[in-house]
Amino acid sequence: MNQELILKAKELINANYISTTLSTVDKEYNVNIAVISIMEMIDDETIICARFGADLTHANLKETGKGVFLVLLTDNERTKDGIRVYVELKEDQTQGEYYDRIKKRLDQTKYCNFELKNCWVFKVTKILPVSMLKR
Amino acid sequence: MNQELILKAKELINANYISTTLSTVDKEYNVNIAVISIMEMIDDETIICARFGADLTHANLKETGKGVFLVLLTDNERTKDGIRVYVELKEDQTQGEYYDRIKKRLDQTKYCNFELKNCWVFKVTKILPVSMLKR
Repeated sequence: MNQELILKAKELINANYISTTLSTVDKEYNVNIAVISIMEMIDDETIICARFGADLTHANLKETGKGVFLVLLTDNERTKDGIRVYVELKEDQTQGEYYDRIKKRLDQTKYCNFELKNCWVFKVTKILPVSMLKR
Repeated sequence: MNQELILKAKELINANYISTTLSTVDKEYNVNIAVISIMEMIDDETIICARFGADLTHANLKETGKGVFLVLLTDNERTKDGIRVYVELKEDQTQGEYYDRIKKRLDQTKYCNFELKNCWVFKVTKILPVSMLKR
């Protein structure tokens, strides 16, 4: 994968912007999108993510395992930047190293009162810019 | 469907916010997300949408026909509001009434120099708020 895109993905994913989403799908091709709050890209191909709500996203990931994160920065409707990070679920931890690591991050946020149900562990399969449109 | 959510969907979809996305999927459950610029919710259950780029989204819609729009307003990282509109592709016009209608809208935007390839016609199947998280 392109090193520049990896660096940008790390920066934008790890900032935990309020505009970060994860799109997933069930076996009948029903697509869902959810705002995701707490995640960390821990190396070039791994993202760990706190699951406290997101029931439908969780069910979809258990069914098909695939998704795409979008971090979209719009600067109040003026300009558009961001990244698309395509992922596959590798693990779903309810305890362990990654669970503890994402719980520490969760505990430092306004979501600290939510029970951490799962730590999703994703393999990054592809990274794309926000738009491929050529003028 | 809930009338309040329908009204909110119309308002937010029809504003054509820069942060509007459409998530779709292919037959192998590979999910994609694309920023979508020109669309109009013309009644309680119909959205028409200009396709000039979005090649992968177009291919996905032809394969599985399902998707979800998200309009997410973040007020520069302070607050979060928006709507999720779940859709199914009903028609894909390269001419006709809806094609002409969305072309008129496209022509009034900064994207007017792009060739309008398709007008996607979607049936709205479900509308949800951005988050279902209960505190």
